[in-house]
Order: sequence, then C-alpha cells, then structure tokens
Amino acid sequence: MTTSAAVTDPYQPRPEHKFSFGLWTIGWQGVDPFGVAVRPPLDPVRAVEKLAELGAWGITFHDDDLIPFGSSENERDKIIAAFKGALSATGLVVPMATTNLFGQPVFKDGALTANDRDIRRYALRKMLRNIDLAAELGASTYVVWGGREGAESAAAKDIRVALDRYKESLDLVCAYIRERGYSMRLALEPKPNEPRGDLLLPTIGHAIAFIGTLEHPEMVGVNPEVGHEQMAGMSMVHGVAQALWQDKLFHIDLNGQNGPRYDQDLRFGNGDVKSAFFLVDLLEHGGYTGPRHFDFKPPRTEDDEGVWVSAAGCMRNYLILAERARAFRADPEVAEAMSASRLGSLAVPTLAPGETLSDLRDEEFDPVEAGQRGLHYERLDQLALEHLFGARG
Amino acid sequence: MTTSAAVTDPYQPRPEHKFSFGLWTIGWQGVDPFGVAVRPPLDPVRAVEKLAELGAWGITFHDDDLIPFGSSENERDKIIAAFKGALSATGLVVPMATTNLFGQPVFKDGALTANDRDIRRYALRKMLRNIDLAAELGASTYVVWGGREGAESAAAKDIRVALDRYKESLDLVCAYIRERGYSMRLALEPKPNEPRGDLLLPTIGHAIAFIGTLEHPEMVGVNPEVGHEQMAGMSMVHGVAQALWQDKLFHIDLNGQNGPRYDQDLRFGNGDVKSAFFLVDLLEHGGYTGPRHFDFKPPRTEDDEGVWVSAAGCMRNYLILAERARAFRADPEVAEAMSASRLGSLAVPTLAPGETLSDLRDEEFDPVEAGQRGLHYERLDQLALEHLFGARG
Amino acid sequence: MTTSAAVTDPYQPRPEHKFSFGLWTIGWQGVDPFGVAVRPPLDPVRAVEKLAELGAWGITFHDDDLIPFGSSENERDKIIAAFKGALSATGLVVPMATTNLFGQPVFKDGALTANDRDIRRYALRKMLRNIDLAAELGASTYVVWGGREGAESAAAKDIRVALDRYKESLDLVCAYIRERGYSMRLALEPKPNEPRGDLLLPTIGHAIAFIGTLEHPEMVGVNPEVGHEQMAGMSMVHGVAQALWQDKLFHIDLNGQNGPRYDQDLRFGNGDVKSAFFLVDLLEHGGYTGPRHFDFKPPRTEDDEGVWVSAAGCMRNYLILAERARAFRADPEVAEAMSASRLGSLAVPTLAPGETLSDLRDEEFDPVEAGQRGLHYERLDQLALEHLFGARG
Amino acid sequence: MTTSAAVTDPYQPRPEHKFSFGLWTIGWQGVDPFGVAVRPPLDPVRAVEKLAELGAWGITFHDDDLIPFGSSENERDKIIAAFKGALSATGLVVPMATTNLFGQPVFKDGALTANDRDIRRYALRKMLRNIDLAAELGASTYVVWGGREGAESAAAKDIRVALDRYKESLDLVCAYIRERGYSMRLALEPKPNEPRGDLLLPTIGHAIAFIGTLEHPEMVGVNPEVGHEQMAGMSMVHGVAQALWQDKLFHIDLNGQNGPRYDQDLRFGNGDVKSAFFLVDLLEHGGYTGPRHFDFKPPRTEDDEGVWVSAAGCMRNYLILAERARAFRADPEVAEAMSASRLGSLAVPTLAPGETLSDLRDEEFDPVEAGQRGLHYERLDQLALEHLFGARG
Repeated sequence: MTTSAAVTDPYQPRPEHKFSFGLWTIGWQGVDPFGVAVRPPLDPVRAVEKLAELGAWGITFHDDDLIPFGSSENERDKIIAAFKGALSATGLVVPMATTNLFGQPVFKDGALTANDRDIRRYALRKMLRNIDLAAELGASTYVVWGGREGAESAAAKDIRVALDRYKESLDLVCAYIRERGYSMRLALEPKPNEPRGDLLLPTIGHAIAFIGTLEHPEMVGVNPEVGHEQMAGMSMVHGVAQALWQDKLFHIDLNGQNGPRYDQDLRFGNGDVKSAFFLVDLLEHGGYTGPRHFDFKPPRTEDDEGVWVSAAGCMRNYLILAERARAFRADPEVAEAMSASRLGSLAVPTLAPGETLSDLRDEEFDPVEAGQRGLHYERLDQLALEHLFGARG
Repeated sequence: MTTSAAVTDPYQPRPEHKFSFGLWTIGWQGVDPFGVAVRPPLDPVRAVEKLAELGAWGITFHDDDLIPFGSSENERDKIIAAFKGALSATGLVVPMATTNLFGQPVFKDGALTANDRDIRRYALRKMLRNIDLAAELGASTYVVWGGREGAESAAAKDIRVALDRYKESLDLVCAYIRERGYSMRLALEPKPNEPRGDLLLPTIGHAIAFIGTLEHPEMVGVNPEVGHEQMAGMSMVHGVAQALWQDKLFHIDLNGQNGPRYDQDLRFGNGDVKSAFFLVDLLEHGGYTGPRHFDFKPPRTEDDEGVWVSAAGCMRNYLILAERARAFRADPEVAEAMSASRLGSLAVPTLAPGETLSDLRDEEFDPVEAGQRGLHYERLDQLALEHLFGARG
Repeated sequence: MTTSAAVTDPYQPRPEHKFSFGLWTIGWQGVDPFGVAVRPPLDPVRAVEKLAELGAWGITFHDDDLIPFGSSENERDKIIAAFKGALSATGLVVPMATTNLFGQPVFKDGALTANDRDIRRYALRKMLRNIDLAAELGASTYVVWGGREGAESAAAKDIRVALDRYKESLDLVCAYIRERGYSMRLALEPKPNEPRGDLLLPTIGHAIAFIGTLEHPEMVGVNPEVGHEQMAGMSMVHGVAQALWQDKLFHIDLNGQNGPRYDQDLRFGNGDVKSAFFLVDLLEHGGYTGPRHFDFKPPRTEDDEGVWVSAAGCMRNYLILAERARAFRADPEVAEAMSASRLGSLAVPTLAPGETLSDLRDEEFDPVEAGQRGLHYERLDQLALEHLFGARG
Repeated sequence: MTTSAAVTDPYQPRPEHKFSFGLWTIGWQGVDPFGVAVRPPLDPVRAVEKLAELGAWGITFHDDDLIPFGSSENERDKIIAAFKGALSATGLVVPMATTNLFGQPVFKDGALTANDRDIRRYALRKMLRNIDLAAELGASTYVVWGGREGAESAAAKDIRVALDRYKESLDLVCAYIRERGYSMRLALEPKPNEPRGDLLLPTIGHAIAFIGTLEHPEMVGVNPEVGHEQMAGMSMVHGVAQALWQDKLFHIDLNGQNGPRYDQDLRFGNGDVKSAFFLVDLLEHGGYTGPRHFDFKPPRTEDDEGVWVSAAGCMRNYLILAERARAFRADPEVAEAMSASRLGSLAVPTLAPGETLSDLRDEEFDPVEAGQRGLHYERLDQLALEHLFGARG
C-alpha cells in the first residue's frame, strides 16, 4: 500500500487503498434471531455515494441486495440502471459479486446441495444470472458462500454425496464462465456453522482441499472471513498465510469477532486486535494485491449516522494498523530481534543442494545442547505489541 | 465389521475388529500441566500381553515410547527383541508407528519447521530411523503429528516459510520410503493448538489442502483424531466424510472430547456420544477398512486396573455403537423416513446426461411452493437418537 | 417421576410428567440472521390444543407471543379470552410467563439497563402488565431473560452502573408482586452472549451471585437453559447442581446445543447426549419438582408436521433418559462400583463432631500411599454410558 | 496509579505500581502434557533479586514452589530463612500466598473435596501450615485455587455433596484465621476446566454465589484470572466489574489467553489486547487498590533471559495500557461521545425519589420513536481503539 506525500490525515482512505464494502453490510437492517429491523432499507444509490464520499474504492453485492427477491424485470432494469449511474458518477467499482442462496425458504436445506433436484437447478440458474450481471459490471471475483449447505444432523445428509453435488455445480459454473469468456474467478467462503448446525467447507483448509478436486482448480480460490475462522478458534493469520502459500487467496472479508460464539461481524479492527495487526501486516507485506473488502454489520444500536461511522472505522483501523506494521518492519531493533530468533534460518532448505538423506545420517549433533538454546520470541512479540500500541516513537 | 454367530457377549472385541492402541495411551503416566506422574512406567511387553488378552489386534508407538530417549544401542536392541517376542507370542500386530518430535527440549520450537537447521536435520534423522523400525515391524502407516510445529506469536514464525520446510521434509521422507521400497504411507495428524498456541495444519481440511502440494500426494493422507477436530468445534463426522470422499482417510484416532478446551483424550464413546455414534456409522458403512485406533488417556484418577477398564471401554463402546448403527440402517421405518426426507435425490446429478446449462435456463419453477416443502429431518434424527439409546426394540 | 402400570408405550408423556412448552418455541417461524420466515404464524389456540394432544401439561409465553406487539385493547381481550378458552377445554396450565424485552427496536440497548430512562420505565411497565396477566392465568414463576442487557463494547456501558439499575428494577418488581399478593417467584435466565456481544449475568453463577444483592433474594432464583450454559462450555449438570444446592432452581429450560457457537435451541436430547442423561438423572433424583420446560426451536427445515414431531421428541427423549437413569441407579453393579469409588465417603464431614483443627494437626498420614489409590471412575462412567445406550439388560 | 514527574521512561515499573509475580510463573520449567522441562529450577532467592531489579513490588508462592514437596524440616527452615533474607535485602513484599493442592498424586481426585476423608484432612493441614507461613511473611490475601476439585464424569461426583465439603473446609479455614488473629482474607480463584474435565466454581459468578453460603462471607472474595474467564468465552471486564460491584475483588491474576482452548498463561497484554485495555481501565479507574499480580508462563521457547524479558513485558504492557486508559478518559472528544451515547443517564435511578410504580403506569411514551434513537456506541468504541493504538495525539 503506497501513500502519497501530500495527505494531511495519514489515515484518510483513498481509492488506491482498494477498500470495498458489501451492500449488505452498510445496508443491514438489524434483523437478528431475537429482534426485528431497526433501520430502514438503504437505497443502493445512496450507498454508492456515501462510500465514495468516505474514500472507499468498491462496492459488492448479492443479487438480492441490489434487486429485491421477486422484483419484476422492469424493476430490475431500473435498479441496475440507477446503480450503474451512481457507479459512473462516483467512480466506485464493482470488484466482486455473489449470490444469495440462503435467505429465502426455498434454500432452507441448502441450494447447490439441497436434496431437491429442482431446487439445485434453480440455485444454479440464480447464480448464473447474477454472474452475467457481475461480468457486465466488471467484477473479476465471484464469491460463493454456501450459507445453507450443511446439516443439523448427520442422519440427514450424506456429506460425501453432498460434496459430489457441490463439485458438480462448481464445475458447471466454471465451464459457464469459460464458455462466456468472462475473466472471472470464483472464491469460496468457508464458515464452520451458523445458520446451519455444521456447514460444508468449514475452514480455509477444507475449502482449498475441496478445490483440489475440481475440474478447473486454477479458477477457484478462497475468500476467508476473519470472524468465520475465529468462530472455530482458528488463527486467521495462519489460515491466510496457508492460502497465500497455495496461491489461493483470491479475495478477503475483513471484520472482527470475539472467538467461538455467534457470527458477530464487528467492524474491522475490533475483536481480536492483535490478530488484526498481524493480518494487515501479512496482507501488506505478503504479496496480496486484491481488494480489502469489509464484511461487517453495524450493530443494531446504531442509527444511520452510526452506520457510516462504523464503515469509516473499518478503513481507518486498517490504515492505522498498516502504518504500525510498516513501522514494525522498519524498526532496526525488530530486525535485530528477528535475527536473534534466527528467523532467517528457516528459509534455508534443510538439505543443501546435492545433499542426500544418507549425508544426513552421519551428522554429529548434541540434542541436549540444542535444547538449551533460547528462541527469544517473547522479545519479538513484545516489540510487535509495542508497535501496535504506538508506543515506540 | 462381521461377527461370528457363536459369540456370547456381542460386545467382546476380537482381532477381526482391528482395534489398536498406542503404547503411549495405556502407558500414560499422568503428567499434566499441573501435576506429576501418578502411575509407574508400563513395560511394553506387558502392554502387548494385556492388549491381546482384552481382544485388541494391534499396538502402535512413538520411537520414544518403546525405546526411552537416550537409550544406548544395546538397550535399544534388547527392548526391540523383547517387544518382538511379545508380538510373536500374542499375535498382536504393529499396523502403525510414529515419531516423538515434541517431547524433548530440542523440539521446543518444532522439529521439521524449527528455525534451527541442525534441529530440522536431527528431526529428519530421528524420523527415518523409526521408519526403518516401523517397516521392520510390518507397519503400513506412519503417522506424522507435528506437535510443536507452530507458533505462539505471528511475529515469530513466517508460516509460508514454515510450510516450505514442512513440504521439503515430507517430500524427502516419501522419497526415502520409495527408495527403500517400503509399502508404507504417511498419515498427517491435524490439531488446532496445544501444546503450541497455534499449530500448522490445524484441521483435516488444512492437512488435505497441504498434501495437494507434495511431490507424492498419493502417498500421504490424514489421521484425524476425534478430540482434535472437536477442540475447534468441527464436526468429526463431516471432516472424516470429506477425507473419505477425497480418498485420504489413511488412519484414524478414536477418543472423546467435550468441545473447545484442553485436549482431553477421553476414552472412545465418552464426550460427544451422538457424534461417536455417527462416526462409527460412517466408518462401518462408508468403506473404511483400516485400523480402529484408540488414542486416549486413562484419567489420572485411575490405577493400573482402571487403565485396562478404560481401554476395554473404548472397544466395547465401539462395538455397541456399531450394533446400534447396523440396527439404524436396517430399520424399515428409518428407510421410510430417509425416503420422506428425499435423501436419495441428492445422489442424482443436478444436470441429466446430455443436458447443458442452457436447458436449465428455461425451466419452470415456483420457489415459493418449493420453500414450503418440509424436509422431515427431525423425525430421522429422532429415530437415530432412539437407536443410540437402544430404545427401538 | 412416577408412571402408572397400565401404560403401553413407556415413553408416552402424560400431564403428571409436568412437560411445558413456550408458545414461542413451537410457534417459531424460522427468522434467523440469514433468512426470512419459513412457517406461518401459529394460532395460540391451536398450540394449546396440539400440546394437550401430545401429552404436555403446560404452556408458557412472552407477552408478545400471545398478544402481538401493538395490538389494540380490544384485540388483546379477544386473544386472551380465546386462549383461556383453549386452556379450559384442554386442561393445559400456564405455569410460567415472561416478558419480551428484546424484540422491538426500542430495546436495542437493553430494557431494564437501557441508557435511556424513559425506555427503562417503559420496560418496567411492560413487565408489570404481563405479570398481572401471568397471575391471572395462575403462573407461579415469572422468568426474566435480559436478552439485550449487555454491551458490544466495554466503552459503551459501565457494568457496575448497569447492575445498579438491574437491581433497582428487580427490587421494584418484587415489591410489586408482594404488594399485589401474587404467589409468584422470579427466575433469572442466564446467557453468555447473543444477541449482545456480552450479556449481563452470563451464567448460573453470576445470576445467583447477583440475587444475593437483592432486597428479597428469597423471591428470586434461576431458570438455567441447557444451551446457554453450554455456549460457554459450562457443565449444565454442575451448574444445575450448584443451583439446587443453593435452593435457587426455580425453573429450567431444556434443549440441546453443540458447544460454543450460536444459540442452537435443538430439541431436548439432541446435542450433548451424555450431559442430557446426567441432567435428567439430577432432576429426577435431586429433589426438583418444578416444570420440565422445553425452550427449543424446530429447525427451519421442518414444516408444521415436523414442528410437532420435534416437540414430541423433546418429551420422548426426556422419558427415555429418565428410564435409563432409574435403571442406572437401580443396578447393583453400579451400587458396587460407587462403593468402590468411595462416593459415600464424601458425605462424611471432614471433621468429626467435636473435633477441632488442632486434632487435625497431629494425624499420621502417608501421602505417597494415598496417591496410589485408584478411584475407579472409568468403570462407573462406563456403566453410565452402557445404561445410556440401553446396553445393560 | 500515580507516577512521579522525574521519571524518564514512562513505562518503568516501580514499587508503587504494586506489581507482583508468582514464584511459579518465572520459575516455570516448561513441563506440559507433551514435553519435559526445558529450564532448570529457579532459586527463590534469585527470583526475588531479579524481580526487585525489574521494578516489581511483590512475590507470591504456593507452599511447594518455595519448599519442595517432601523437604525435611531442616531444609524448610533454611529455605525460608534465605527467602526472608532476600526479601529484606530487596524490599520485596509477600502480599499473597497459596497452597499447592493439585500437583501430587495424593490430590488426583481433589483435595478439599476428595472422596477420601483422610486426604481432605491432609489437604486442610497442608493449607493451614502455609497460612501460618503466609501470615508470618505478612501476606494479607490467601488464594484458594481448587485445581483438582472437579470431575471428568457426572457419575463420579455428587456436586452438591462436594460443595458441602468445600463449604465445610472454607468455614474451618476462616475460623482458623480468626482464631489466630491473622489479618488475612481468602480469595477463591475460579477456573472452568483443566486439569479436571469440569472444575467446581468455574467462573467469577459461581465463586461469588458460593461465597454467599459461607459462615464468614465478608472474609472471602475472588481472585479472577484473565485467561480462566476467557477459556469460557466470558468477558473478563464484565466479570471483574461484577466482582467490584459486589465488593469481592480481593486480588487479581493478570495474564493473556486466546479464547476457549488450553490454559495459555500468556504474558499480560498478549492475547485479547482490547480486553486488556478495558481491564486496566477498570482497575485504574474503578477503585481497585490491591496488587497487580501476574500469573503467566514464559513460553517453553524462552531461555532464562527470555523469562525476564517476558516478566518485564507484563509490567510494561500494564503501564502502557494504563497511560492509554488515562488519555482516553481525559480526551474531551471521548467525554462528548459518552454524552452523545447518554452514558450518564444510566446512573439516574429509574424511579425518582418518592415515585411509585403506579406513577409509572400512566406515563406517555412512544416506543416507535424511542426505537429510532441511535446510541452512537461505534464512535465511542472507535475512540477507545484509537487510544489503544496510540493514534490520537
């Protein structure tokens, strides 16, 4: 992330930061399992305008976020035209889109893995139709979150058969994208549970493992969400690192969560602050060049003003953490501490070029002495914390 | 699992059930983070004899379980000879072995991914040496649990570099096995955390994803452990189903756990009982033919007698659950309920042979009507529970 | 729980079993954070009739379950009259009622601890009004679940001040009940989180601790819910045991949950089956004589038929587990195992009558020998499991 | 916490900060469930000297930390004399002590609630003996952590009977303290699980509830530990606030944890950073005047140098967070935001002096209008985060 020199507020978001928001995030009306809506619907045009005003770069959507389920063709056309007008007026882009395959009763048993074949076919149609719109709007990533693909009881779903259907669907969708010539990739979004008891592809790992079975694995990656991994007590940083290592980080959902509990969708920076710091560090210094997409929910306590304060906070926290990460990486004492911890040695292959396992056999080594060496990780971690706190100059 | 007709106790374990135990399980002395050993060391010969007596089929070990760390060559030879003698006398087999790469101080920062290159080389040597012994004893599976491969701080370990080293090591080990002509496969054992803050390859999914990057992926599968998946709130049944679906279930560790907390290693059947039922159902009816391996810890409250009661309980619970699962599958009312839930439809491909996505486009479908169909899963799940309770005839 | 001899189906619920259901449970329409309603509203009269038909004894309600929020006085009167008619026709009783202080936007920051004083006053009025109705319908327990009393951020709520207001409100409510001469007790329902980030009185313990500060602690107890305790990884059995020990188990909410995650409200018997077994054992043999109240949600996959199958399953599972617990307690081998585990010794006071601490000082004791005694808990636990499985005669 | 003006490093700990450390924390040798010791024993005298050098104020201990289990009377006397000498030389104080009732095999089934009466009597003796030493060393708080009071199976322990014995023991201990005229209070330390499957008094709430049943409740409070509450997903800030509100915060254990998993005992400031910020804010501004006690474990990766870096980090993080909390409270924009969130209104009683519930009945109120008011908590929480990041001047 580069920043121009002339800016006064170092944490002012600008389009080059590639911040994007889901229409469903700022537009969330606050329906939860125990309460009704607390905010009126948000006009997509106003969403585009407000995001542009705050310094965002992109907006994303599920089909039903933009075009209410059951709209007529005429209504649909009008909505799309107005949306395009707002994009064009503001310069906001649509880097990603996705399908709502979970909100309507028809999807209560899943969509691509519903038992009813006609429902699966309908889900595919709904998905393809929105892929066409996404392509038209210039989206290069299409997210697939199987929000209802799962089960409450292992008696009720043969997971192996469900994975057959999941694979069939995604292979069909990839074929469709190729056939149409869209330059679009799929990003699977893992989640362990909620709203189903257990969801298919519960973590980054399961999703990447599954992708390996597809006909066009190169077209499919993951869209990990901070809170989803943390709901399973997983390290988001480790998960994203593995995804990057396997060239599968196609998109990312940034938000906050306080460990295993319901999906909180806190604004980014909230929740596990230290993990957010290391995640930003990894994204900024790990070669990821895609969107920084926020998938959060402004709490029900907020009115319209609070919604935008919350959205602005996501971007501001990212920029603060990016600055802290830069300072951490640039600190000579950190470099010295990394060296004391022998981080560089890990990059040296265990066998030298030309060495064989038989060379290894005869090496002299004192495990007791080696066991006494300190790693000095506490010092390194403390330096990281102090940078996070802004407590080092 | 077939049972001969002449047996009186229907839950009496026999070798054909393929029950195996880790030497470290029945031999656990009870050292935990807050207390010292409560039981004396267990002689491996006695372990073999007692397991055989109880009806087990196999025994497995880490190198250091059998041959205490630091033993001389002479001691080693004696121990191995005695162990072989006991195997031969009892007919017990060694279907699997593994390496202790976590107990000694030298491995406090990991083994195959330790920062120190000489430690990584030592770890490889230790592993290869025990692979030779495993091959000699006839083991066809070699488990790899990276108990210390991980980190407490994201500042302290670049996960991508660590995965490079992990891959390097496993590629070398596979090359070694091929070179030696051993008919042995590796099984990676995932675990989310403990004893490190976050471990590499935290779930079944992450392990299978990683395997896809290896030079010989066909030689490497997973060894999932009930408690390890449940520590992350994962469904063991879904995870094992995905592993089976990807042909990666090479081995399995059966035990019990009460959700996200420290690794409890309860005897099998204890902990999440319903999940145990569906797991046995999946293993018995899902095509898995490998060992039923117990990796549990008899609680510290038990004396020697209690250790064997606990071990016998693992096998007995498996056999009870297997019988319950058979009865569930054979119950005509269950068949009828499955049909009412339309489970069979999920096996029908979403597109018919010859159909294309354009055929799909024009289909008539009423999502509102489809949304009203009941799935009747509660009935099916209730039938499963009643079979688990032995409450249906 | 006594059962008459002449019954054919041993698991047929009857009024003497004291099974009650919340109107909101069988009437749940399926709105969740990711989906709209899947079932039409349930007429309270039909609810009463169906429950009576299934063998239930009581029905309970939040004010807004029975009388939709915003109803006119006239509508209210009609609804109450019809409800009373159904109760009278079926013999169903109303053992408990409660207030909805969480569903409407006005309560988005809590009710009794909302920052806005006029909202707190309104909440009190709403509560008192429904207490009058509850008294009129014969309820002896009034449940208080502070569904929105809590916070997402520690910056946003001074918990000590919130507890001042909580105490003030409950003291006022108790005064009101005494003033009116109602024979009614309050039961606080703990929950750790959801729908707020962190809720006040998160566990049974916190609620009982808080009750100790009230003006009439004898009028206030707890209404623990299986799933709520398990969302925090707490043992429901231990928590209920402590509540019984402190004479505070005034009511109970039975359902199922799979550990720390969103509030699942599974039917009773589902989720942690072993814990359900021991809970029923405790309720049946621990002196609790109140309602066995089910607070569950029939999953969204169910149609109307499935709703009733699910409700019937709650009662059936309770009765099966009660039978299993009776058999466990009656099994001579269990008695012998309990004796081997020295369970009886725990009931003997540590100091004998007349003994003082100075007597204690001089006792001979060999801690090493004592540390070698086995407790034989695995045998006892295995016997419990086998009774749960119906695998002992 | 007051700081003198002349100090250069604003985060240099000094005795007036009241930082204390357990002897078992810095002395932890690194034995965990999967590995042996990595560090040699720490001489208590050296511990005192090093802590004093780092700026700590106090040191605390379990009997067995200071005097190894099984020491002779002669050894004991020597050790105590040397320890007193070091205290006197450095000025370090002993504000708290506690008993190890969990490490030896004799306590494998608990101590004060062990089934075996002679073990309970021995546990009491062990406790009383160390209370004498604690009093002699000037400790005003005696911590009781029932590390093995609990159960793996609900079949194995009647919790109500166990609570009888727990109460009996604590009543006896209080009587002893009164009889001896010690000015000492007990502080119960809650923990949900580990090393037992479920522990008695699992949270702050359960402990305070239990204290209400004792003969001298005024002598007994709680010693909450950050990680223990967070292992149950509890908010440490809410729990400590309730303890303060009930005048029961007698002592506190500061450390870090990453949510529900094994007990990590990370250095303070690590783990959930945001919660640490609000906890320090509460301790500094909520009237707590007791020790700031660190109960952490320097990770096994650390050598002796790392141990002290880790200990110093605990204090430094506390001081950084205390400064951040002061700046947060002093920031005029924060004051304005708190006012916009109407935090002050919560302190106003819901009923005015002289008002009765009947006055309440007739109030005019529009719940729909009230439901539209925003609470502006996101703004306030964002300001808190920015202070935590040191990002506001």
